[in-house]
Amino acid sequence: MPQNSNEAATKIMQWADHLATFTAMEGGLLRAYLTPEHKLAHQQIEKWMQQAELQTWEDSVGNQWGRKVSSKPTLPTLLIGSHSDTVANAGKYDGNLGVLLAIEAMFQLVGEDLPFHVDIVAFADEEGTRFNTTLIGSSAVAGCFQQDWLAIQDSQGISMAQAMRDFGLDPALAGQDKKTKEETLAYLEVHIEQGPVLEDLDLPVGVVTGIAGAKRYQFKLKGMAGHAGTVPLALRRDAMSGAAQMISTIEQFAFEHQIVATVGRCDAFPGAVNVIAGEVHFTVDIRSQSQSTLENCCTLLLQQLSDIAEARQLTLQHEKLYQAEAVLCSDDLQQKWGEVVEQHTHKTPCFLSSGAGHDAMVMTNITDIGMLFVRCEKGISHNPREQVIEADVAIALDCLTDMIRKLAV
Amino acid sequence: MPQNSNEAATKIMQWADHLATFTAMEGGLLRAYLTPEHKLAHQQIEKWMQQAELQTWEDSVGNQWGRKVSSKPTLPTLLIGSHSDTVANAGKYDGNLGVLLAIEAMFQLVGEDLPFHVDIVAFADEEGTRFNTTLIGSSAVAGCFQQDWLAIQDSQGISMAQAMRDFGLDPALAGQDKKTKEETLAYLEVHIEQGPVLEDLDLPVGVVTGIAGAKRYQFKLKGMAGHAGTVPLALRRDAMSGAAQMISTIEQFAFEHQIVATVGRCDAFPGAVNVIAGEVHFTVDIRSQSQSTLENCCTLLLQQLSDIAEARQLTLQHEKLYQAEAVLCSDDLQQKWGEVVEQHTHKTPCFLSSGAGHDAMVMTNITDIGMLFVRCEKGISHNPREQVIEADVAIALDCLTDMIRKLAV
Repeated sequence: MPQNSNEAATKIMQWADHLATFTAMEGGLLRAYLTPEHKLAHQQIEKWMQQAELQTWEDSVGNQWGRKVSSKPTLPTLLIGSHSDTVANAGKYDGNLGVLLAIEAMFQLVGEDLPFHVDIVAFADEEGTRFNTTLIGSSAVAGCFQQDWLAIQDSQGISMAQAMRDFGLDPALAGQDKKTKEETLAYLEVHIEQGPVLEDLDLPVGVVTGIAGAKRYQFKLKGMAGHAGTVPLALRRDAMSGAAQMISTIEQFAFEHQIVATVGRCDAFPGAVNVIAGEVHFTVDIRSQSQSTLENCCTLLLQQLSDIAEARQLTLQHEKLYQAEAVLCSDDLQQKWGEVVEQHTHKTPCFLSSGAGHDAMVMTNITDIGMLFVRCEKGISHNPREQVIEADVAIALDCLTDMIRKLAV
Repeated sequence: MPQNSNEAATKIMQWADHLATFTAMEGGLLRAYLTPEHKLAHQQIEKWMQQAELQTWEDSVGNQWGRKVSSKPTLPTLLIGSHSDTVANAGKYDGNLGVLLAIEAMFQLVGEDLPFHVDIVAFADEEGTRFNTTLIGSSAVAGCFQQDWLAIQDSQGISMAQAMRDFGLDPALAGQDKKTKEETLAYLEVHIEQGPVLEDLDLPVGVVTGIAGAKRYQFKLKGMAGHAGTVPLALRRDAMSGAAQMISTIEQFAFEHQIVATVGRCDAFPGAVNVIAGEVHFTVDIRSQSQSTLENCCTLLLQQLSDIAEARQLTLQHEKLYQAEAVLCSDDLQQKWGEVVEQHTHKTPCFLSSGAGHDAMVMTNITDIGMLFVRCEKGISHNPREQVIEADVAIALDCLTDMIRKLAV
C-alpha cells in the first residue's frame, strides 16, 4: 500500500541522510566512482529498489538498475534516473534526490500495470570526481562510452580498467550493454536546480527546457606598465582599465542577449599598487540554451572586446578552454511536465533552462529527455549547505508519478 | 675655462656611466645607503666637486656637499642637489643626473662671483632601498630626521645606527647639522621626468609646478559566489562585475577631475573560471598636485564607489594604505625656470606636475623649491632602459646655469 506523498517525502529525506553515510570523507560527503562507498551505496539502493518490487541488476560500468516490469509492454521502456556519485564535500541531494524520487515513484505505482517497463537507473559517475572524465555512467548507457577512458588513471595512478576489475566488473564489457533508440521511450530526470530561480519565484519545482551549451575562454590583455604617478591618463595603455571596460561590456552584453556570462578570474600584472597594469588575464564562461545563440554571441562578443582593445591600443589574445553543446528537452515532455506541475502546485509552471550539465545531456543521444528541477535553498550546491524542503520533495514525487501515468495514456 | 654646454653634456653622460660602475649588483646598478658603493661613489663625486673648485665635506648622515664660496655673500645660501642612491636594477640618471648637472653648472660658473654661496648636495638616500624609510638624506638637511629611524634594521638585521658607525659616521650626530630657513635662499633640483609627458610634447625640459600628493587604498568588495551556469544575471551579486564598474568609474572620474588614479592590483575569489566571484580585492592609487583637490576627489570617489556597491547589493570596505601631502613649487622660481627654458629651447615652456616624490618635497620644510624635469625615453625609470638624450642634458645645463645667474640678480 503506497504511502501518501507527504509521508513518502519524509522517507526520501531519511533515505538521503542514510545514503550520505556512504562516504570516503570524514565529516563530509564524498562518493567517487568504483570505490567501496559506491558499492555500499548501490547495495542500499538495490535494497530499496527491491522493496519497490523492481527487478535489479548492475550494468557493465557499475550503474545500478531496477525495473518495474510491465505485464504487457506495448511501448518501449521508459528510463528514469540520475546519479549517485558526488563531488568532494558534497551536498546530499545533487543527483541522489533524483534516484530516490524515481524509486519512490515506483512504490507509488505498485499495483498499477503500465504499457511499458520502467527502468530506474542510478548512474555511478556523473561528476567525474575520480577520473576527471564526467558522465561515465550515462555515456555507457547511451552508447557514448569511449574505450580510451579505460586507460585514464586516478590520482593514485590506478587506471579505470583496473578500478573496474577491483570493483568486480570486466572492463572488456564496458558499454556493451548500451540501450538503443528503438527500445527506449524517453528519459526522465528530476534534479535539484543548483540555482536560485525557483526560490526567487517561490515555486517548488520547475520544468527544464534544455541544458545550456557553454564556452570558456582565457583572455590575455596587454598594454604598457608604468609609474602610477608620472604617466598622465591620456598617455596610458592601462590593461586594467581596458579589462574593466571589457568585463562591464560582457555583463551588459549578457543582459541584452539573455545569456549568462561570467568573469571568474582576473589577475593584473605586475600587480603593484603604484604601477599601471601592463597585462591583465581574465576568463569568460558563456552559456546559452540555444547553441546558435551561443555561437553568435561568442562571435559578436569577441568582436566587441577586440574593438575595445583596438581603441585603447591594447593587444587582446584569447584561447578557448572548453566547450559543450547545448541540448533541448523534448517539447512534448516539457508540456506534459507543465501539466502535472500545474496540477500539483496550482500555479503557472516555470520553464527554465539548466546552466549546469546533467546525465540527460548524454541521454539525448538515444531518446527524448524531460527534466524537472526541485527548488534548493539559495541555489547552493556542491556544498554541505545544499538543502531542499520536504514539502517540495512531496510535490516533485507527485509530479513524477503522474508524469509516468501520463506517458502511459 | 668652462667647456661649452654640448661638450659638458658629453662629459656628464660619461660621468653618469662612471658612477654606474659603483654598484652592488653584477650586471646592473644598485647603490644603497651606507654601503661601500655609496662611499666610493661619493668619493668620486667629491673629486669632481673639487675639480669645480668647490669646498667639500660629508655631513652627519653621509650626504656629500660641495660649496662654491662667494667672496661677498649678501644673500642666504642657494642649495642645489638631488640623490646619488638607486633602487635595485636601476637606471643611471634617476637622481644622479641632477647631482652631476649641479656640479657641472659650478664648472660653468668658475670665475663668476655670486652674491651667495652655492651648496651642491648629493643626498645619500632618497629611494629607501636599504631601510625602506625614504628621503633620509634630505630629511636630515631639512631638520626632519627622526631619531627612531636609527633603530630600523636592513634585511641583514643591521640597524641604521650600526650602518652609520660602520660607514664612519656618528649616529648621535645624525641631523644635528641641519640647515635653517634663515641661511637658505632656495632649493633647486633637476631630475629626469620619469614620465612620458615631455617626450609626448617633444620638449627637452619642463618646469615642475609641484609634487603630487598621493593616497592609496585597498578595497574589498563582497558579493555572493555562485555557479556560473545556474544563477541568472538578475539574481547575481557578482563582485567582479561590480569591481569592473568601479574601475571604469575610477578611470572616468580621474579624466573628469584631471587627476591620476590607478588600479594596479585586482584579485577575484574564489577565482575559478566557472564560479561567480564572491569577492574581489583591488587597490587604488590617487594623486593630485593640489592637496585640496586630492582630498575632495577621494571623498567624492569613495561615495561613488559606495553607491555602486549599494546598487548592486555588494559590500565595500576600504583601508588607507599610504598618503603623502602635495607640495607646490615656488611661483617665483617656476617663472624664472620658465624664462630660462624659453631662452634655451625657443619654445613655450611646459609646466607640469610631478607624480613621483623627490627630495624637493622634504626641502619645502625650510625653503622655496624649484624643479626642472629632463625628458627621458618613453618615461621609463627604475629600469636599466632609463635613458636621456645628450642634447637635452646640454639644454638642462644651460637652464640651470642661467637660473643660478638669474637668482643672483
